[in-house]
Amino acid sequence: MIVDIINKKRLGKELSFHELDWFFNGYLEGKVKDYQMASLLMAICIQGMSDEETFALTKVFIDSGDTLDLSFLNTTTVDKHSTGGIGDKTTLIIAPIVASVGIPILKMSGRGLGYTGGTIDKLESIPGFRVDLSEEEVMYQVQNIGIVITGQTASLAPMDKKIYALRDVTGTVSSIPLIASSIMSKKIAGGTDKILIDIKVGNGALLQTKEDAQKLSDLVIKIGDIYQKEVHTIISDMNTPLGYCIGNSLEVMEAIKILKGEEKDNNLTQLCLELASEMICMAKGVSKANAIDMVRETIESGNAYQKFLELVEAQHGDLDKLSASRKSKIIKSPKDGQVQAISAIELGKLSVLLGAGRLSKEDSIDYGVGVELLVQVGDSVKKGDSLAKIYYTKAPHLQGIEDIFVIK
Amino acid sequence: MIVDIINKKRLGKELSFHELDWFFNGYLEGKVKDYQMASLLMAICIQGMSDEETFALTKVFIDSGDTLDLSFLNTTTVDKHSTGGIGDKTTLIIAPIVASVGIPILKMSGRGLGYTGGTIDKLESIPGFRVDLSEEEVMYQVQNIGIVITGQTASLAPMDKKIYALRDVTGTVSSIPLIASSIMSKKIAGGTDKILIDIKVGNGALLQTKEDAQKLSDLVIKIGDIYQKEVHTIISDMNTPLGYCIGNSLEVMEAIKILKGEEKDNNLTQLCLELASEMICMAKGVSKANAIDMVRETIESGNAYQKFLELVEAQHGDLDKLSASRKSKIIKSPKDGQVQAISAIELGKLSVLLGAGRLSKEDSIDYGVGVELLVQVGDSVKKGDSLAKIYYTKAPHLQGIEDIFVIK
Repeated sequence: MIVDIINKKRLGKELSFHELDWFFNGYLEGKVKDYQMASLLMAICIQGMSDEETFALTKVFIDSGDTLDLSFLNTTTVDKHSTGGIGDKTTLIIAPIVASVGIPILKMSGRGLGYTGGTIDKLESIPGFRVDLSEEEVMYQVQNIGIVITGQTASLAPMDKKIYALRDVTGTVSSIPLIASSIMSKKIAGGTDKILIDIKVGNGALLQTKEDAQKLSDLVIKIGDIYQKEVHTIISDMNTPLGYCIGNSLEVMEAIKILKGEEKDNNLTQLCLELASEMICMAKGVSKANAIDMVRETIESGNAYQKFLELVEAQHGDLDKLSASRKSKIIKSPKDGQVQAISAIELGKLSVLLGAGRLSKEDSIDYGVGVELLVQVGDSVKKGDSLAKIYYTKAPHLQGIEDIFVIK
Repeated sequence: MIVDIINKKRLGKELSFHELDWFFNGYLEGKVKDYQMASLLMAICIQGMSDEETFALTKVFIDSGDTLDLSFLNTTTVDKHSTGGIGDKTTLIIAPIVASVGIPILKMSGRGLGYTGGTIDKLESIPGFRVDLSEEEVMYQVQNIGIVITGQTASLAPMDKKIYALRDVTGTVSSIPLIASSIMSKKIAGGTDKILIDIKVGNGALLQTKEDAQKLSDLVIKIGDIYQKEVHTIISDMNTPLGYCIGNSLEVMEAIKILKGEEKDNNLTQLCLELASEMICMAKGVSKANAIDMVRETIESGNAYQKFLELVEAQHGDLDKLSASRKSKIIKSPKDGQVQAISAIELGKLSVLLGAGRLSKEDSIDYGVGVELLVQVGDSVKKGDSLAKIYYTKAPHLQGIEDIFVIK
């Protein structure tokens, strides 16, 4: 019975594969209601799940839909996933880089959730860019130009999609077993051979501690083992936003600058180098040093940016029409000092308030708004110096703006 | 924000009065959804609530509706509440007893939930019996004949009613702070001066341990203090069902036998004597010995049963039409031995399967079905002796029936 299963988990007991399968499929069929699933998810968040339960749930998610077969590509495929952060436009940068060295990239990405942005929303800020490709279009494009980035198709792990939407609005996102089964079910159903997972830690991330990040890392590797998928993980900081821009079109513009090699070294370029070279190592079996050289060369030669342009063209995007909001406002430093911290979570909240993200699933996104940082952590500033430029359409409430920058 | 409050409780932090008030009233207004409330309730179940939070939630529940003023009765009023059990028809017995000695009884009761029956369902097994009296009818009847038992009117603690229905289907019933605020908000809104709470412990009860029962007792007394309501508690066993009958009309018939003084001493008659005498002590300030004498006298004189008949007549019930299902089946002992236990929870499950209770809110009740025990714990039986008589309409699945009786 539905309530018996919820009560079992409430008391911290282990659920069997059969119980999880019955309950979650019951939810997909409408027999188990939203409020009952929410209750079980909260019990799972607090009481946890054993590895066996997590493996079982991953299988239930995978079995809820199709599994792609990428063997026709006749090469080792590698996919990357980020657990999500503020200003995280790494996919826009590393996917073209990796594709430009001959590794096929078939990436199904998500929309923004909570305070973190989503690759699909960012790409949609390019007018005309299609993110709803069919399975056939996806297969054709990856074979034709070696890169495709689209929304998750309805046929892959549909149960995860439904559960994820519910978790987002019920405070049940921060559960390591739920995060692991969600990520891994999508990646395994996607058919990739190898998986690189960028686990974010910090105030702007799902996970707040390195210990939790390590737990998630251990768990996704174990799940990968079961399905013979090589999984590598990188644990990266998300107390500070990545790069300078937060907001959809602003982030695409920043990604383009990096792909063109016009950006100086910063936390974003470093992470992109790390992730892209790791994907190349995994796919091609080359050394890390070699892979790093390949990344640098493909940017310098213009090949990476060229691949990005091919991607945009193939998916009908018009970069000439990409634009930020025309209205802007400069935030100035209230005092002399050094920038000690730039809070990712506070910037995330501000960007959602500006309209760059969604507070509820029904909200629409204002693609042109956001924040461009004009300083980085460690910079010295004087009173009145510009800290950030805010792009807005509706006059923003800038309450709490002083919480973003710690200047001492 | 809704999710922020849920997350706070998920992490085990204390919610302020303002946060509880905002969230729960948001639910009543439809701003907070069922699935979000279910998630918070589960977090409360597992992480608990401080006394301050429980006091706050009780106030939010009370303030969601009207509060009755019983001062027109010009006497001390006392109300009884049971946390619910299998075969618990005590209200049907003690309400007429107490009313027959001149203490006004204005009782708002509930329907069956889970495996435990409800007084309102039991009374409805008397054809014609009205349980949906208006506030005016309630006031008129209690003044006129000194007794009324009806369903909770919509105007008293309506939030508790909505939350309780959700808890029942989301595995979030077993929380001491939620139980305490639910009981106390209804009783305080009901306007009674003094409150007697029968806290059940055992496999057929919400609470499984004496420690939990003691915690609930402490908490309801503390809440009572805040509202200047004298609260007494009795902790009573619910591993064994109360009396012989489980099932709506069967339980009314058993109650009538006890009111007529036709039943021998058993766990039900003992509990009724304890509860009724305690209510009399509380209302009249007499000694316990005195109160016990009054209970015995009012039964022997026929006054208690007379009061019951007045109640039934006032609420349009027709006792001549009260009936059990005509189909029945005898359960026989599989061996010689002594009856060591009769499981309340297993009998509760069986009675729900027979149709005496609801598995979901939409289920209708079959008033005539149920179980009549033919033995009590401690009885010696021989193989083939009758243990119980099952009243049914649809041929029952008797799987698990052997789990009810422990014979050794």
